[in-house]
Amino acid sequence: MNLSHIEHIGIAVKSIEDSIKYYENVLGLKCYAVEEVSDQKVKTAFFKLGQTKIELLESTDPEGPIGKFIEKKGEGIHHIAFAVNGIESMLNKAEENGIRLIDKEPRKGAEGMNIAFLHPKSTGGVLTEFCEPGK
Amino acid sequence: MNLSHIEHIGIAVKSIEDSIKYYENVLGLKCYAVEEVSDQKVKTAFFKLGQTKIELLESTDPEGPIGKFIEKKGEGIHHIAFAVNGIESMLNKAEENGIRLIDKEPRKGAEGMNIAFLHPKSTGGVLTEFCEPGK
Repeated sequence: MNLSHIEHIGIAVKSIEDSIKYYENVLGLKCYAVEEVSDQKVKTAFFKLGQTKIELLESTDPEGPIGKFIEKKGEGIHHIAFAVNGIESMLNKAEENGIRLIDKEPRKGAEGMNIAFLHPKSTGGVLTEFCEPGK
Repeated sequence: MNLSHIEHIGIAVKSIEDSIKYYENVLGLKCYAVEEVSDQKVKTAFFKLGQTKIELLESTDPEGPIGKFIEKKGEGIHHIAFAVNGIESMLNKAEENGIRLIDKEPRKGAEGMNIAFLHPKSTGGVLTEFCEPGK
């Protein structure tokens, strides 16, 4: 079990449309997908940069997780997702080390990935996701 | 001119010593350098994960940039640094697009890199660094 790379960085934005302009026109990246994830109350836009995706997250509901994040902290980096080999073992090791888990078991995320979050209160303020391709 | 990958992610922490334990024991990464950068009033610790470094930043002075960041926002992700080809052209393009630059010209950073920061007020709340190896 180990981490292999940073799978994606999630960034909370007020407007996907405005932010896509910055990522495309200023940084020269190309948005390759825009998708609404209704159970997370977000609209997402994806860019690829080397091994890592940048995932913009716009809230579709002020009561959703991104809506609340922006109300409290403003726009900015929301979470970091590590690609892991052996997600269950990684979660067990985290729990053994006293880390608070948001997801005790992996659940299905986008693109058929198994995902689980660690709580930022026990990871130095960094909302941390593990992702592993589903079998 | 373009971005090639995410060079590093800077994370503000209260205690490098405590945070290294999390990154090593829970995430299984290996700290390969600890260094004090006195003009930035920080102590740093570095990990490598795929193409990207994780850079922990502990303040050595409450009046320094990381000390102020933690006082205002708490621990968490502080900045993201993109490896670029053509840092001057990237800065010019950003300025032409109305982005506020913290550094109008590249300056020397760690490891002989030329670096420049964009202001988070014009990048959707993300303090953004460009880095390019010095010639």
